[in-house]
Amino acid sequence: MQWDDSLVDRIVNAVMERLGQPAAQSGSGENLVTPDIRAGRVPVGVSARHCHLTPEHVEILFGAGTKLSVFKPLLQPGEFASEQQVTLVGPTGKTLGPVRVLGPERKASQVEISLTDCFALGLKRIPPIRPSGDHRDAPGITIVGPAGAVTLQTGLIRANRHVHLHLSQAEAMGLKDNDTVHVRIEGERPAVLLGVQVRAHKNFRAQLHLDTDDANAVGVKSGDLATLIKSL
Amino acid sequence: MQWDDSLVDRIVNAVMERLGQPAAQSGSGENLVTPDIRAGRVPVGVSARHCHLTPEHVEILFGAGTKLSVFKPLLQPGEFASEQQVTLVGPTGKTLGPVRVLGPERKASQVEISLTDCFALGLKRIPPIRPSGDHRDAPGITIVGPAGAVTLQTGLIRANRHVHLHLSQAEAMGLKDNDTVHVRIEGERPAVLLGVQVRAHKNFRAQLHLDTDDANAVGVKSGDLATLIKSL
Repeated sequence: MQWDDSLVDRIVNAVMERLGQPAAQSGSGENLVTPDIRAGRVPVGVSARHCHLTPEHVEILFGAGTKLSVFKPLLQPGEFASEQQVTLVGPTGKTLGPVRVLGPERKASQVEISLTDCFALGLKRIPPIRPSGDHRDAPGITIVGPAGAVTLQTGLIRANRHVHLHLSQAEAMGLKDNDTVHVRIEGERPAVLLGVQVRAHKNFRAQLHLDTDDANAVGVKSGDLATLIKSL
Repeated sequence: MQWDDSLVDRIVNAVMERLGQPAAQSGSGENLVTPDIRAGRVPVGVSARHCHLTPEHVEILFGAGTKLSVFKPLLQPGEFASEQQVTLVGPTGKTLGPVRVLGPERKASQVEISLTDCFALGLKRIPPIRPSGDHRDAPGITIVGPAGAVTLQTGLIRANRHVHLHLSQAEAMGLKDNDTVHVRIEGERPAVLLGVQVRAHKNFRAQLHLDTDDANAVGVKSGDLATLIKSL
């Protein structure tokens, strides 16, 4: 057996993949531009309701000194589902949970829910559809943890449809950061979802992020493939 | 005189309008072939989870001698939301309700839920997508009412996407019963829903029936307009 660098790379990538970590990017962009990517196909990642918290809010909700602990790494490098979970409380006392906290901690807390979740919570003000981190016109929400509660004044959003791509993957598809594409999904109830934001970055890996409303409408689950379409 | 396609279109439309008049006035005198219909636009009717019951099951669930009473007429002639509501019970005891009973009574009981509802009920066997009345491979479900419970052996389905059209409306669109079309819906999260069954009948009125997963994915509500597309 030949013991060379490309073999090491392949083994490391395979191990990292098993561990749930994306394969490390060794140099140019090899490996990430697969035949699927060349054909515009990306795996779906279904995002159920979740939240991001500041270090301060983590301590209020889970106790002084608490830091988020890893429950499961996510595909995007450095991101993880934490062991911590919270409950959301709507304006009439309706609750929704458990809601997974995603790590690492952020500079501003953010809660992402689906429209179905909005109805379940009895929200009078439906949060806007926003890219992560954009809290323009976003209402607040009360979050309850085992050690306390926080009422956000803003940060409640419905996540926009977006597709993460490594820069090399975007380039292979003729796309760039912040482009808009459509996405065709086959299955029992196929659909073309229009107006999907491209997010291309050197740290990203190809993954179409859909909320549970989009996912359940089409009947798609994480790992299924969707096809990017530049125009209808 | 220029003899071109747009002129042909105008003439055909004018003739169809004349011809469409009598057909559209089925009984009530209303003209069903409106400019919206000519443009392929139909109003959406969002169907939340609901059920249809046999007269026998109505009596078991609501008490001997009970008949469904009208809460609100639906757009399709003769159909109504009844005052009666039930609760569904999943295999692990999880419940979902209230679930509206639609009338009139039917020959076979049928429960229609969304995929999100399936998860909420903890179903191990996800019911198939079926047109109303088609219970092939459909599992059962337990229904509880104020006077008793019924466990169906079959009849639990996820409703297929379908659009009701009066025969004159279908004809004006160049469609016939059981054709398949796509549906484009604008809004905050626009989409083209693929594979929508046409149901054309002299008793029907134009209405696109979507379940709450499709409706919440797109952010559409009853009365909003959707556009039928014959091919992408």
